Amino acid sequence: MARSKAKPELHWISGSPYAWRVMLALEVKQVPYVSRLLESSKGDLKTQDFLRLNPRGQVPVLTHGDYVLTESLAILAYLDRQFPTPPIFGEYAYETAQVWRVISEFLSYLNGPMGRVVTPIYAGKAAEKAEDIQAAMRSVHSELARLEQSLGLAPWLATDGISAADLTLYPSVRSLMRAASKPAALALGLGLLPLRSAYPRLAAWVQEIERIPGYERTYPPHWREAQAA
Amino acid sequence: MARSKAKPELHWISGSPYAWRVMLALEVKQVPYVSRLLESSKGDLKTQDFLRLNPRGQVPVLTHGDYVLTESLAILAYLDRQFPTPPIFGEYAYETAQVWRVISEFLSYLNGPMGRVVTPIYAGKAAEKAEDIQAAMRSVHSELARLEQSLGLAPWLATDGISAADLTLYPSVRSLMRAASKPAALALGLGLLPLRSAYPRLAAWVQEIERIPGYERTYPPHWREAQAA
Repeated sequence: MARSKAKPELHWISGSPYAWRVMLALEVKQVPYVSRLLESSKGDLKTQDFLRLNPRGQVPVLTHGDYVLTESLAILAYLDRQFPTPPIFGEYAYETAQVWRVISEFLSYLNGPMGRVVTPIYAGKAAEKAEDIQAAMRSVHSELARLEQSLGLAPWLATDGISAADLTLYPSVRSLMRAASKPAALALGLGLLPLRSAYPRLAAWVQEIERIPGYERTYPPHWREAQAA
Repeated sequence: MARSKAKPELHWISGSPYAWRVMLALEVKQVPYVSRLLESSKGDLKTQDFLRLNPRGQVPVLTHGDYVLTESLAILAYLDRQFPTPPIFGEYAYETAQVWRVISEFLSYLNGPMGRVVTPIYAGKAAEKAEDIQAAMRSVHSELARLEQSLGLAPWLATDGISAADLTLYPSVRSLMRAASKPAALALGLGLLPLRSAYPRLAAWVQEIERIPGYERTYPPHWREAQAA
């Protein structure tokens, strides 16, 4: 079919953890793709053309031939079916379950509290929201401790190799680390940095992911610019 | 392998939408299983034996031979790999993506607001929390309207046949309907019931799911008792 021969096109914005998951999966599977970097501040997510692709006006959107795909986890599941090597949802039924278990637990217990930490810090409201940030950090620490423990048994979160669980959690963990490194966040004493002291196995896992060939292509360009400035 | 010949055992509690998803999937796939009905009020979720199965102390837990599986979506993915007929995550890559898209959208946009409606009603705090319930209902209506629209194109939410998307959303929709039928909720005028007036296609979809052979076995026993009382 023509559709499976066309290169996928990924619509993304810099720093979106949701889009980052998909970029990492494309690198892991070594799938060549066309990159469409959008800018939210320029209204790129609200154009008629983009809203036709995703009425919710959000990235990532992956187009592949006739197909238009939204929601990062759905795109990961699609990529694993279209480009099966290496598998990112496990090879056996039990591995598939472990990948979805880790992702489900992340969504139910960690993603929300992480947002309550990261969002106010990026919005310049760290001092104002300090109390809720500290409350959310208690949940974050409790979940990170579980992940740290599981990494004592295996180098990856769900299976023997890198999986969609690692690719789903990494951008959010990385985004939390970046937020925690802002001066206003450092003042709060979140107990997260340096990660290698607080969570040494998680720090090693972060480094392992950053060794994926092609990882550099997925790194948020505006983070790099901020570092260079 | 012995493990795939053993009957799966499902640990569940009456009325848990998460456990109900798995029970429906077992019926759709006609997988015989051993039912372990637990009672939260008797402390069944806090026993050492149960916490060994799931340290989070939550249902559903499915054991299958040597495997212990937690998190309802992970269990659905597992069942689809172990018992592939009929497929509940689609036959083709694009269908798989549609199933996970609907589930992801439900988790991101509908599940939270539904909880803000259902939880206070069941807790006898409908009047006290009326303002937040009404605010949450605006999101619920906006998402139900999207589902209603999609059901205009097909009888099921994600693929040509019943899928994990239908099985995931149904128990939550049904639980919302039950909460909305309580006298304290009726007083709030949530605009949901009768469902066949507010959302006729969604009402037809509910009926369609309730025609699954074996559906009666999945119906929460304490709901039935409440009706009989």
